[in-house]
Amino acid sequence: MRISELSARSGVAVPTIKYYLREGLVPEGERRSATSAEYETIHLERLRLIRALVDSGVSIAATRNVLAALDDPPPNAHRLLGLAHAAITAAADVEIDVSAAEELATGLGWQPGMCDDRVLTEVARALAAIERAGFEVPADVMPVYLRSIRAMADAEIANVPTESVEAAVRYVVLGSVIVEPLLLALRRVAQQVASAERFGGSEASPPPE
Amino acid sequence: MRISELSARSGVAVPTIKYYLREGLVPEGERRSATSAEYETIHLERLRLIRALVDSGVSIAATRNVLAALDDPPPNAHRLLGLAHAAITAAADVEIDVSAAEELATGLGWQPGMCDDRVLTEVARALAAIERAGFEVPADVMPVYLRSIRAMADAEIANVPTESVEAAVRYVVLGSVIVEPLLLALRRVAQQVASAERFGGSEASPPPE
Repeated sequence: MRISELSARSGVAVPTIKYYLREGLVPEGERRSATSAEYETIHLERLRLIRALVDSGVSIAATRNVLAALDDPPPNAHRLLGLAHAAITAAADVEIDVSAAEELATGLGWQPGMCDDRVLTEVARALAAIERAGFEVPADVMPVYLRSIRAMADAEIANVPTESVEAAVRYVVLGSVIVEPLLLALRRVAQQVASAERFGGSEASPPPE
Repeated sequence: MRISELSARSGVAVPTIKYYLREGLVPEGERRSATSAEYETIHLERLRLIRALVDSGVSIAATRNVLAALDDPPPNAHRLLGLAHAAITAAADVEIDVSAAEELATGLGWQPGMCDDRVLTEVARALAAIERAGFEVPADVMPVYLRSIRAMADAEIANVPTESVEAAVRYVVLGSVIVEPLLLALRRVAQQVASAERFGGSEASPPPE
């Protein structure tokens, strides 16, 4: 197909496709003349994937890393996950103290050596931001977070397909990134549902005492 | 205190503070002369809060909305949550079909009228992005997501403080925004822990069969 059809079918504008081509995110099509090239289904699928990643808030640089992980998978399923997470996580900040993060992670079943520094650093950064905001997660809530998040991760990892490395890579890389906006959106719905049940959903209901 | 001390104590650079003042995110200090003003603890707290929100990935526009919600709280605790969510969510896109999102939300206990269109639209957008990426949440995993997220929301809403509207506002607004990066970071740790348990954490372990 021509670039115009590729654009129509992927929903990505032609100038944006050209930008992705220049950046190497999408492989070149087969040249037909000085000004036109032929594109295949793989180009279309790649474009749809890029659009989904970018729509999920993943930067172009991180998208490049995710695509690289898909194109050149590591041989081991556990290292895969580290790679997927590294692709979407800023480099670990050596100055940050991760001891509080480690203590919290213990509640997830974490033991030393089980995960890379980047994700623990991310937990430490998030804890620091919460503290800076003067917010505190209630003591009753944190254990529920840990238990619920561990249950979700168990289900996710139990479903890693093992019939091929490609399938495992795709599941792990996309599953960690693409699902995040869904989980955050579902959390907001669940909060409104729980709030409606506790406080009453109508505008006429009284304020909390 | 002078703006230089305010900068030192908040960790926010003076030009950035001046930008926030111009944007109305931080109230003006009391003028002492044509070139200097005096700032108080409330300015410091406001700056720390802005920094935490911005660090959590909240845009300046959304930060303004969150601050407005804190400064001028609605009288009803349930509407509060809608307001907090609206502050950090893009306007609902009328063209998007929310029927799949509503069906999914039913698994969270959702019933018509319980939550505003924005959060359902966000779920619909996230579902569309997942589909565009050619990804599918496994049938075994989705019910675990719904159950776990509902459990987290129940704990969060059960802990909304009711001793004052201000305390409720602060908890609801900050709790929905500031905690998100922590939950995503903990999810990555939990995934690596579950993966280490299933596949073995060392680089020497064999690839999945």
